[in-house]
Amino acid sequence: MPATTVLDLNDTLRERDLPAASAILHPLAPQEAAALLEQLSPRRRTIGFRLLLKDQALEVFDSLDADNQAELISELGSAEVAAAFDNLEPEDRAELLDELPANVAKQLVRALSPEERDLTSVVLGFPRGSVGRRMSPEFIHGFTDDSATTVLDRVKARGHQVQSIYIVPVLDRGRHLVGVVSLRELLLADPEEPVGGFAKTPIYAHALDDAETTAERCVDRGISAMPVVDAEDRLVGILTLDDAIEIVDAARDVDEARAGAREPLRESYLLASVFAITKSRVVWLFVLAISAILTVNVLEIFEGTLEQKVALALFIPLLTGIGGNTGSQAATTVTRALATGEVHPRDAARVAGKEIRVGLTMGTALGVVGFAVASLIYGLGIGSVIGLTIISVCTMAATVGGLMPLLAKLIRVDPAVFSTPFISTFCDATGLIIYFMIAKAVLGI
Amino acid sequence: MPATTVLDLNDTLRERDLPAASAILHPLAPQEAAALLEQLSPRRRTIGFRLLLKDQALEVFDSLDADNQAELISELGSAEVAAAFDNLEPEDRAELLDELPANVAKQLVRALSPEERDLTSVVLGFPRGSVGRRMSPEFIHGFTDDSATTVLDRVKARGHQVQSIYIVPVLDRGRHLVGVVSLRELLLADPEEPVGGFAKTPIYAHALDDAETTAERCVDRGISAMPVVDAEDRLVGILTLDDAIEIVDAARDVDEARAGAREPLRESYLLASVFAITKSRVVWLFVLAISAILTVNVLEIFEGTLEQKVALALFIPLLTGIGGNTGSQAATTVTRALATGEVHPRDAARVAGKEIRVGLTMGTALGVVGFAVASLIYGLGIGSVIGLTIISVCTMAATVGGLMPLLAKLIRVDPAVFSTPFISTFCDATGLIIYFMIAKAVLGI
Repeated sequence: MPATTVLDLNDTLRERDLPAASAILHPLAPQEAAALLEQLSPRRRTIGFRLLLKDQALEVFDSLDADNQAELISELGSAEVAAAFDNLEPEDRAELLDELPANVAKQLVRALSPEERDLTSVVLGFPRGSVGRRMSPEFIHGFTDDSATTVLDRVKARGHQVQSIYIVPVLDRGRHLVGVVSLRELLLADPEEPVGGFAKTPIYAHALDDAETTAERCVDRGISAMPVVDAEDRLVGILTLDDAIEIVDAARDVDEARAGAREPLRESYLLASVFAITKSRVVWLFVLAISAILTVNVLEIFEGTLEQKVALALFIPLLTGIGGNTGSQAATTVTRALATGEVHPRDAARVAGKEIRVGLTMGTALGVVGFAVASLIYGLGIGSVIGLTIISVCTMAATVGGLMPLLAKLIRVDPAVFSTPFISTFCDATGLIIYFMIAKAVLGI
Repeated sequence: MPATTVLDLNDTLRERDLPAASAILHPLAPQEAAALLEQLSPRRRTIGFRLLLKDQALEVFDSLDADNQAELISELGSAEVAAAFDNLEPEDRAELLDELPANVAKQLVRALSPEERDLTSVVLGFPRGSVGRRMSPEFIHGFTDDSATTVLDRVKARGHQVQSIYIVPVLDRGRHLVGVVSLRELLLADPEEPVGGFAKTPIYAHALDDAETTAERCVDRGISAMPVVDAEDRLVGILTLDDAIEIVDAARDVDEARAGAREPLRESYLLASVFAITKSRVVWLFVLAISAILTVNVLEIFEGTLEQKVALALFIPLLTGIGGNTGSQAATTVTRALATGEVHPRDAARVAGKEIRVGLTMGTALGVVGFAVASLIYGLGIGSVIGLTIISVCTMAATVGGLMPLLAKLIRVDPAVFSTPFISTFCDATGLIIYFMIAKAVLGI
């Protein structure tokens, strides 16, 4: 999407040149129009949405994020809202309902047809954060003894109702998942062949599995739809690649932003106001600054030592920098491994064992260099203090950095919140204590 | 993918229990088997690959990353290699060729059928980093006046050769792209209707467009395939969602790792050796530590000032922390906006204007608090120094943090390399200079 189009659209809306804005929006595919609107301020987004063609509007609404949909709902007339809401897939509807005030949500659900209401409640029956909550409960299936033509006819008859028709789950007569066939295989197969004969091993998930890990797996394998089964291995829904991408992207945007000590920006960067950008950062900056006051307190304790040997102050930023970087390295590695399901909180001992050794190895390598350089310039005493501090700080920072994300996961906080920025601050303070303890011991002050 | 399976597979391979390893691998879908193998060490990966069933092996090879494929090639026999190479899609083949030594690459290309060789050279004709290099040059198309049945028959006849059949580009007789129809629409349409009648506005790309930005757009819109056209708007290939996801994921893994000052790990975290983990981090740590020596030099210049007023040392980690965090916030925001194409290097002035104002706003908010607290405890002099330094450091760090990724992009370096870690170090040194200049001026020392 060329950024200029967003800026153009924004300009036309600011100047209230509605025909020009329509001329930009009308030729666009719904997903492109939604992507443009999502980058505007809420007020201009609503104006832009009202300019859409009637059919286009429904599809654009469907393509918007749930929080954008929720904002629009308060602005639109009730007839428009009912139409847009009815047009959504059950799982998107469940997500939107989570964003709406309870009374609005209730009213919208009441207006649904009984069938749509049932499908929505299947999804709402699974806990938040589970893949059951994000799957589509509408799917086309085949039984093992159905012929390719039978299944293909079912696809043609019901294809306009269900979201994914490119992967068809194959069930035994007890409705247990036994395989999948792709629409491509159905088209290319001998029409009379039973689908059980050419069904492939399915890549599937359990409804209570974590939505993020499952979505990550679906995207990673590049499969266009993943069947979802209940505890008895019976098919209950399908996670489409679309929805999986949305889950993964939303999670990664938040992780990435938090690792950079900010909240994700909801509008386009160039269009966002200074106020909006400041808002996304200032709280984090205050929290970190307040935690950093700890470092002032730590240094105060050692003010006497500092007065006796001012040269010690010269190395403060170097040492805290090394600690902070080592801690971030470990934290981002483990956060990523947690997201892909490679590591679980129960692996804490293995992670700690690994990070202690990695920290010690890196600390020794860096410490020897630090010792040599500092000894040459400031003498053996200061050299030894610097060398020993680097080894200790690296080991401590790697271990803390590796364990923090696991702790966060255990107490059900987003690991990204805990990771980089907090670890830096924590390592700064702890590193300073280690530094001055070693200095007092080695230099005898 | 349950982590236990990776660990189980690794254990069986370590103990040379090949029947047990085969029992784990054989029932898996090719993508799952590839995902497992990619997490192993290169030696165990080769052993695991050799245990695969014959048909499974070809598909697993296809699902592996290009660097894993390249490693395997040197281990496998030439007949196996030729079969696996022939089985790849042209664009995957082009990617693998980039990873191989030139003589091996030449030999493999020579063994291809003329048709496959032509398709591969179409892709190789576009520059690295362009979407033309990553698209599939094989596609099924329809002309506007073809009936739905005609196109559907073409899909059936050629569907086993081309990678994506779920989106069919529609061309005019000059082969210019005019729309797309989905396989779903073809199946559900009146068989005699010309496809031009129901084709939708295409979301497409130009072959020379940046691969990463285009893939980001394809994934963001959740479309299963994006037509790629040449400068005259004639169709030359198709970017499938699979390939787009692969491009986006690889780029994001690297960005994320670099933002955490490390290189991406190629094996599973729990299986990777201490040596491999250390290797992915130690170079970065050294580079950062060497740059941090700058801070020691800066402080040395002001050693006299420090000796006169040791209290100034207490605030060093607090101030460098605030600078580092502000810089990271700006850098990660702009890096992300660059990746999604929201911002271009030519927007430098707008970015600078925005970040100066954001930095000034945040700096003033934090500076007022810093002034009040520091004045109460250390007196008005130190309080003013702290307040003024926070304002200046925030403004400087936000501006530098926002501009660095643009500069990186301009000189064609990965913006992520330049971003967080380097900015922290740079802001540390610059922040210290600002701090002591203000201290000398205000306190008159």
